[in-house]
Amino acid sequence: MLSAVDNELLTRTSAGTAMGEYFRRFWQPIALSRELAEPDCPPIRVKVMGEDLIAFRDTKGRVGLIERRCAHRGADLFFGRNEECGIRCIYHGWKYDVDGKCIELPNVPEGPAYHGKIAIKAYPTREFGELVWAYLGPRERVPERLPELEFAMLPASHRYVTKRLQECNWAHSIEGALDTAHFSFLHMPAPSVKANTNPDAAADERRLRWLRNDPLPEFSIAEHEVGFVVGGSRRAEDEGYYWRLTQFMVPAHSVTPSALPGETYYAYTWVPITDEACWIYTYAWHPDRPLSAEERAKYEKGGFGQFAVLGPGFAPVRNRSNDFLIDREEQKHKSFTGVRGVAEQDAMAQASQGVIADRTREHLTPTDIGVVRFRRIMLEAAKSLAAGKEPEAPHLYKSYRLRAGGAVTHAASLDEVMKERFGDARGRASA
Amino acid sequence: MLSAVDNELLTRTSAGTAMGEYFRRFWQPIALSRELAEPDCPPIRVKVMGEDLIAFRDTKGRVGLIERRCAHRGADLFFGRNEECGIRCIYHGWKYDVDGKCIELPNVPEGPAYHGKIAIKAYPTREFGELVWAYLGPRERVPERLPELEFAMLPASHRYVTKRLQECNWAHSIEGALDTAHFSFLHMPAPSVKANTNPDAAADERRLRWLRNDPLPEFSIAEHEVGFVVGGSRRAEDEGYYWRLTQFMVPAHSVTPSALPGETYYAYTWVPITDEACWIYTYAWHPDRPLSAEERAKYEKGGFGQFAVLGPGFAPVRNRSNDFLIDREEQKHKSFTGVRGVAEQDAMAQASQGVIADRTREHLTPTDIGVVRFRRIMLEAAKSLAAGKEPEAPHLYKSYRLRAGGAVTHAASLDEVMKERFGDARGRASA
Amino acid sequence: MLSAVDNELLTRTSAGTAMGEYFRRFWQPIALSRELAEPDCPPIRVKVMGEDLIAFRDTKGRVGLIERRCAHRGADLFFGRNEECGIRCIYHGWKYDVDGKCIELPNVPEGPAYHGKIAIKAYPTREFGELVWAYLGPRERVPERLPELEFAMLPASHRYVTKRLQECNWAHSIEGALDTAHFSFLHMPAPSVKANTNPDAAADERRLRWLRNDPLPEFSIAEHEVGFVVGGSRRAEDEGYYWRLTQFMVPAHSVTPSALPGETYYAYTWVPITDEACWIYTYAWHPDRPLSAEERAKYEKGGFGQFAVLGPGFAPVRNRSNDFLIDREEQKHKSFTGVRGVAEQDAMAQASQGVIADRTREHLTPTDIGVVRFRRIMLEAAKSLAAGKEPEAPHLYKSYRLRAGGAVTHAASLDEVMKERFGDARGRASA
Repeated sequence: MLSAVDNELLTRTSAGTAMGEYFRRFWQPIALSRELAEPDCPPIRVKVMGEDLIAFRDTKGRVGLIERRCAHRGADLFFGRNEECGIRCIYHGWKYDVDGKCIELPNVPEGPAYHGKIAIKAYPTREFGELVWAYLGPRERVPERLPELEFAMLPASHRYVTKRLQECNWAHSIEGALDTAHFSFLHMPAPSVKANTNPDAAADERRLRWLRNDPLPEFSIAEHEVGFVVGGSRRAEDEGYYWRLTQFMVPAHSVTPSALPGETYYAYTWVPITDEACWIYTYAWHPDRPLSAEERAKYEKGGFGQFAVLGPGFAPVRNRSNDFLIDREEQKHKSFTGVRGVAEQDAMAQASQGVIADRTREHLTPTDIGVVRFRRIMLEAAKSLAAGKEPEAPHLYKSYRLRAGGAVTHAASLDEVMKERFGDARGRASA
Repeated sequence: MLSAVDNELLTRTSAGTAMGEYFRRFWQPIALSRELAEPDCPPIRVKVMGEDLIAFRDTKGRVGLIERRCAHRGADLFFGRNEECGIRCIYHGWKYDVDGKCIELPNVPEGPAYHGKIAIKAYPTREFGELVWAYLGPRERVPERLPELEFAMLPASHRYVTKRLQECNWAHSIEGALDTAHFSFLHMPAPSVKANTNPDAAADERRLRWLRNDPLPEFSIAEHEVGFVVGGSRRAEDEGYYWRLTQFMVPAHSVTPSALPGETYYAYTWVPITDEACWIYTYAWHPDRPLSAEERAKYEKGGFGQFAVLGPGFAPVRNRSNDFLIDREEQKHKSFTGVRGVAEQDAMAQASQGVIADRTREHLTPTDIGVVRFRRIMLEAAKSLAAGKEPEAPHLYKSYRLRAGGAVTHAASLDEVMKERFGDARGRASA
Repeated sequence: MLSAVDNELLTRTSAGTAMGEYFRRFWQPIALSRELAEPDCPPIRVKVMGEDLIAFRDTKGRVGLIERRCAHRGADLFFGRNEECGIRCIYHGWKYDVDGKCIELPNVPEGPAYHGKIAIKAYPTREFGELVWAYLGPRERVPERLPELEFAMLPASHRYVTKRLQECNWAHSIEGALDTAHFSFLHMPAPSVKANTNPDAAADERRLRWLRNDPLPEFSIAEHEVGFVVGGSRRAEDEGYYWRLTQFMVPAHSVTPSALPGETYYAYTWVPITDEACWIYTYAWHPDRPLSAEERAKYEKGGFGQFAVLGPGFAPVRNRSNDFLIDREEQKHKSFTGVRGVAEQDAMAQASQGVIADRTREHLTPTDIGVVRFRRIMLEAAKSLAAGKEPEAPHLYKSYRLRAGGAVTHAASLDEVMKERFGDARGRASA
């Protein structure tokens, strides 16, 4: 439970808010590289933390992220022509480069008044891991390197990246990812669907049984320099414990607890669009091999794991406006929710908490330990920055190379399990 | 004409408003029983006087009306599973019974902190007359019995119940029902359509002629313990007078003035959804015989009397968004309005007065006597309750068994006509 | 650049605002005559400067412009029956004439209380040039005659009038018309489309070349008693200069700079609907000959010059909601904008400046001279009226007969060019 004041502080990210300023100290994804597919392709609208911007890729392949209003009389540069290393306003031809500098002013006589002096807001961008990243904070604080999330450090062949629109505030959306307890309900089959009790059942069937049989996993948590790893352990019959281990990295990255040894890893980054919607950038990668064409096809089609079925604009086909196409017959007889897709089930649960969740009326439980720690870390970080203390995390780029996933083991402590599963107590991939 | 202050007082029914508190002293319909067709069927959203709720029918057939937010982290129970005498949140499986008690908390360790102590808001419900009724007021004031409106006291075979969405405030919608003067215009054929002047014409043709020829009926009114009966008498050539008699019962019931002796009765109940929309629950009944399959089919199809043609969600097909499909050619040559359906004509006239009618700029006439008395009674009742005086009406359940309708008679006083037509000066059906 | 205060003053036209009161001193178009095609036809909704009204043509052909609420209980007269010299409320039959007088009150007993005393707001109207004009200001200030714009003084055969919805504030929309500099970009082919450099090329090709080659026209401006004429001159190779001459007349008329000698003239009038949308009444006329059926067909179909392709309600098919159907391939290879239609290109540029343009952050240039003068004149006029000085312009009806267009000439001063092209230094058609 939070006070109303802290709930506001946690959730609001517009420029000038404490959390907004904290977010602005980090590089963050603002588009998929493929949304700007080639030099001089059409610009795209980008809304990030309440700021209305456009992104464009210039003739040399550089990506600009600039404000939308032409400095002349405010026409929208979204309609502009992307040509010869700049975007040109359709109204009177003022042209801006990727740094926001106005490099041509055709209806202005030569002279020092305007030429060389006009510029609009522009943010530095970089491309990494098939994403466009931008930094929206003070120029003197730009982190030198991007966070080295493992998927981004691998060859493109080894990963798949996409995003989906989530129609609610970023903070309670990420809370859903830090709470593996909900797997015992939200993603389960309907109770009438029998789990295979055969001890030789395939991994998935065993996992399903363990998840369903133990709705009250024991949680352990361990902080590291950019967040924490949280583990939930369930009884796994005579195999010991089924651990689900999740990474959280500030300001809003998470590695999922699904991957058993040898399986593909998944992770996300949340980026606020406004306080009422966010992008969930979603990654799959395998550190040891290329992803197959078949795997890519499944991710792209959606309806598989954390990959939703998407319509235009990366908006899920199942969404708030259509009650996620809930099917009450399926809910009775097939799945716990009647909503198809793990991603869509998460989207539904999170959207259903409200556009901005009201944390003043909650009743938290021991399985909310990850949620509670997330809030504490973020609130402290935002307050600390507001008090003048610059955060270190944006500069700890190497610390972001973290793994998480599942483990079936007799080990009973988080440290032990992490070492056994990842070779490092905190999940460092480089270790 | 009302002051702006009284107009607010009359129209606003959210919790905490004077009128809202008065409404909350009464049992009121909140759904048709058939919207919750069977045990463990899908829950439905219910919005009543601004409160966001869900209703569900449990395994034993009981109906719960509870708030929508799970006490844990606020997920929407509308998406919940309705199973084994409770609705279960899809996020972490918390389960609530029809009284709002949290009876299962699977992700909470045993112990006295939460178990047995968590509950969400729930309102008592009862079923009566194929409607679900709820009481949203203080628990110590629950009226013991439901208002015994005649339709509800009869066998189901003798009645038909439905509802329709009205896109405006409840108060000026019910005012339309208390004003029989509008029949001389709103529901008439176009002036160029000749009324049959044959004295042997069928009842409907004679009624039409009388209504059209006398747009200025004489009104009489008589209060009773739960409201009033208002009569408008028109000249009916050598048959004397054509009386149209309407009942109003607090807070928002009405019996229509149409039924001539032997004909089917109709009545309504208005229930505010918000201050900007309401449900009109609509009833047809015959005290002496079952309704025929043909009659039921006409009501269900709509476009007959007070039964509108409905689309999904009991929303009329002709509505504010499409100008009620007004046909200007029909308005010129066929009907006074060019809008098909008596219910739709009422809906149009009422919606056209505004979302909340502005009563500060009216010019009322003697035919508005019912409207004026309705306002006076309701304003006094609401102010009286606000001043601490509990109303009696909610407990006078027997007094709601009232009839109204039409009469063709030489009797000239309201008392006389009521006695002649219904055997009682106030229309008591039990008399 | 304007202060925030002046920006508000310039753009707001609701009753009681300084600019709104200034606008209300003038006759203004509120409908096309053909929207009220014949006596007793259906009434239409008219929203003008934030006021909700209806217009109807009565049995005698007179047009009434009255408020929408019936004086009785506020029903919407839009649904009324237009019959026998009045519009009749569908609720209780109150009937209003074109002057807003309630001439029948069928549900009111005879007597002096209401009869002859009830009236609703009504504004005087006149028809002129196939438009319905209305005057919304103080009755004692009604200008005796309508502004004698040339198109309206000609036989109907010589003109074509229409209107289109523009989804932004009136003021920055008209600014687009006073700024011929934008022709060098907004309405150009894509740069890769070669202009014909043959000196014998047809007029259009030469104009295109001159426009494209000189994005920095030299502007001259000359005020007259109802506004100003502004000229932009571009180099026209050995033919001298290509002048584009535009008229502005208060409060919101403009004659376009396109017509070369012998060509058809075009003009517009802007009328605010609200502060967030306006009508652009659009006129074509030839002073010397009837327009051909072919010309009319092109105007009506749209996609030709200032005539947009219109959908229902005179709303352009290409509009804000669909990004003006911008085609990025066409933008690359065919037209500068990728949006089809000159009218649509203007609509896009103007809408893109915002619903209400923010003039506090501009960087104006010498080509914005018309824009600057327009603002100065309008702000002074509105402030002056607010200070108690009545404007003269509304009464100078003859001064509105002004022409504008293009000229190819060696003349170098505005006066000279105007005299040469129109026989008068200010473009008076009567001269």
